[in-house]
Amino acid sequence: MTPGAATGRDGGYDTISFLSDYGHADEFVGVVHSVIAAIAPHVRVVDVTHGVAACDVRSGGLALARAAQYLLPGVVLAVVDPGVGTDRRAVAVEVGDGASVLVGPDNGLLAPAVALVGGAGRAVELAGGDYRLEAQPELGSTFDGRDVFAPAAAHLCCGMPLSALGPPIDPATLMPGMLPLSSREGDDLVAEVLWIDRFGNCQLNLDPAELDDLAPAGAPLQVTAGEDLRTAERVRAYAEVSPGRVGLITDSSGLVSLAVPRRSAADDLGLHEGAEVRIGAADAGGSDRAPATATRVGLGRRPAAPAGHDIGGGP
Amino acid sequence: MTPGAATGRDGGYDTISFLSDYGHADEFVGVVHSVIAAIAPHVRVVDVTHGVAACDVRSGGLALARAAQYLLPGVVLAVVDPGVGTDRRAVAVEVGDGASVLVGPDNGLLAPAVALVGGAGRAVELAGGDYRLEAQPELGSTFDGRDVFAPAAAHLCCGMPLSALGPPIDPATLMPGMLPLSSREGDDLVAEVLWIDRFGNCQLNLDPAELDDLAPAGAPLQVTAGEDLRTAERVRAYAEVSPGRVGLITDSSGLVSLAVPRRSAADDLGLHEGAEVRIGAADAGGSDRAPATATRVGLGRRPAAPAGHDIGGGP
Amino acid sequence: MTPGAATGRDGGYDTISFLSDYGHADEFVGVVHSVIAAIAPHVRVVDVTHGVAACDVRSGGLALARAAQYLLPGVVLAVVDPGVGTDRRAVAVEVGDGASVLVGPDNGLLAPAVALVGGAGRAVELAGGDYRLEAQPELGSTFDGRDVFAPAAAHLCCGMPLSALGPPIDPATLMPGMLPLSSREGDDLVAEVLWIDRFGNCQLNLDPAELDDLAPAGAPLQVTAGEDLRTAERVRAYAEVSPGRVGLITDSSGLVSLAVPRRSAADDLGLHEGAEVRIGAADAGGSDRAPATATRVGLGRRPAAPAGHDIGGGP
Repeated sequence: MTPGAATGRDGGYDTISFLSDYGHADEFVGVVHSVIAAIAPHVRVVDVTHGVAACDVRSGGLALARAAQYLLPGVVLAVVDPGVGTDRRAVAVEVGDGASVLVGPDNGLLAPAVALVGGAGRAVELAGGDYRLEAQPELGSTFDGRDVFAPAAAHLCCGMPLSALGPPIDPATLMPGMLPLSSREGDDLVAEVLWIDRFGNCQLNLDPAELDDLAPAGAPLQVTAGEDLRTAERVRAYAEVSPGRVGLITDSSGLVSLAVPRRSAADDLGLHEGAEVRIGAADAGGSDRAPATATRVGLGRRPAAPAGHDIGGGP
Repeated sequence: MTPGAATGRDGGYDTISFLSDYGHADEFVGVVHSVIAAIAPHVRVVDVTHGVAACDVRSGGLALARAAQYLLPGVVLAVVDPGVGTDRRAVAVEVGDGASVLVGPDNGLLAPAVALVGGAGRAVELAGGDYRLEAQPELGSTFDGRDVFAPAAAHLCCGMPLSALGPPIDPATLMPGMLPLSSREGDDLVAEVLWIDRFGNCQLNLDPAELDDLAPAGAPLQVTAGEDLRTAERVRAYAEVSPGRVGLITDSSGLVSLAVPRRSAADDLGLHEGAEVRIGAADAGGSDRAPATATRVGLGRRPAAPAGHDIGGGP
Repeated sequence: MTPGAATGRDGGYDTISFLSDYGHADEFVGVVHSVIAAIAPHVRVVDVTHGVAACDVRSGGLALARAAQYLLPGVVLAVVDPGVGTDRRAVAVEVGDGASVLVGPDNGLLAPAVALVGGAGRAVELAGGDYRLEAQPELGSTFDGRDVFAPAAAHLCCGMPLSALGPPIDPATLMPGMLPLSSREGDDLVAEVLWIDRFGNCQLNLDPAELDDLAPAGAPLQVTAGEDLRTAERVRAYAEVSPGRVGLITDSSGLVSLAVPRRSAADDLGLHEGAEVRIGAADAGGSDRAPATATRVGLGRRPAAPAGHDIGGGP
């Protein structure tokens, strides 16, 4: 949601950045593109990703947050929506004094990105009917991406004011995202895998400064994942990791990722998203396990993160 | 193929909706996009999906039919073509009095969509040579999407008349699609899985009205899939399905889908596309198995579906 | 990189053809699209493919070469980059007297395509800093596609001269691609699988003329893959392969591919990319195995391929 290109059109927008868990096996993404183009032919749709794991709201929210600072200003359409058809709210949320509007379900998906770009401005519930696809009562309510969210996004691009989409809601009532915080336990850092990327790198909820505090530069570290204990080293490039070791790298989001040379660190260490990882000095003894704590990331205010825990420094 | 936006250009078209079984692992889709853009730079290409199972003409035809009513008017390029290089015909078929033209192999892929939008108008065989990619005799005839279909679609967008693509053919000679009909056997409905979506929901060839006839609203039902017998209930949202039960939901195509809360119904019930599913009242005894019957969906006429069997009510 | 459409803009370009190993599970591709659109909103981005196997430079180079002759003139952005963050060079290489510029890592990825379109003209190292994304020292150097390559490609499209991207380098110093040559061993042809496509067809480094030399037209052949010996036949369409036989077909790149009717030849024969395949007359005895030889495909000069080994005849 960078300033500059591709905004403004008599109060509308020129870009929709679209993220979902629709995958590419079915026609869901193509139908949404078609619906948008029929309503707002002038709009450029950028597919952020549709590879979010099915119904995985947390993963989708993190992906959107990692991408957020690079997205064009305009409308963000985000749909990971296991509660489709229930009374979970559909919402549109302004950020950046209206430079962008996020459209999606009110289930925490939008919260990390909204928080990262400065918090919510005005918000409305998509409860109006005028902009929805023509009612076809014989069709079920299982595809709000097509029937509610895409039309709302497209009409925003055509200049429909936010207030025309539905009644205003208090941003403080929006569902927050739950993001885990790392913690210090004795001599160990206890972290959690936020994201496993295509290459098997494991992004942790850990700021590089936390590693600085753990051991002097160049000192060997150890990483514990499940029953697996490995010697680790801090590197600046994936290719620098020594054979047999686990690399700790500052990644493109500014967080610490685990990497293994020429292989998937996730496969090598048996990690999944949400798994616990402990990091200590190589000579330090292990300590008892305890779960990482969680904190609320609320919309409408940027949380004052404790030093060393600002995962908002991410994307 | 909605009326309105993005048509007309001196008799040409502004949009190509593109569906195939090319997948995203190879460069096939990108090459076709490049070929189209070189011939018709003004065209917007909407990727409906390229995730149709390899060579699965039936799945591709159903996906196209589900999407059809949402596609922009213009050209539809559809390629699932196990017979590439043989004497199966390559065709272009007008629908909606020329509002749209479907281009693809004459193997039944186009038939369900053509039938749904009112049947075929004029049709031609893509037997001419002028619009094909410059002959390169050293290249094989294994990629008609690149060499025949995409050039034909792109030239149509540039205003080339349908008749210039090749000799006219009788729409009645186009290959029909075979779509299964559900049937009633004693107290049971015998249906077939048409489609398993990304989320594992199983779309059946069943109109909700058929369930209305089976049991009073709210009455418990049972679903038999293979050896598996489950208690089922009708719901309006995926999230409403009770734990341990199978949900029967009216989906976004207007057909009945099987869903299981927070899991893949297909995995849970061991279902694949084409599998038989029996539905009965919860207290009714099972009856002997018999295969669902099939009917021809022909191009050029909209079949008068028997009451309760109008799968044309789909997308 | 066909002549004609979509070039020229005050010395800039209108198209970026984008290939990578980023996959579609993460937001990498979407972020790169966003970065390009923010710098160069006028540019059409064609996704060639992002399904190259992770870090597989050879596969990526072959995919780019197969696509090359169909790509629009303009900028080609290619990123398969296991050495990201190390001192491997980032480069931009002109071809066709500036009709196109390839941007990517100097690791052999670009070499096959550059060779196929006539060799490199001017080349520069992307060592300048002005066009890179605004320095964010807290972010790691693990995503040069976002931070270096995409901005360079976008600024080229906006008319930034090649020389402004960094110091000139001698094209002869660019990393060559290593492409295997087939060989003759006694009565057998010894070939290698270059590519397994979505459908399981196995493209070999073999020109159809080499098969012509092996046996008279219509004579039965045999194919040895691992321990597996099969009767083979030359066909013109996948659907022509007789049941139980392996088809040898001239594919859309002009090379010989192995195909099996209605199945994946790769699965059926247990083949992987890089595997050896021997082809002989059906009655000829097998000969001892020997590895196929390799040759350098250098940038800046088109190699004079020995007769029957011109894999440059490919895409």
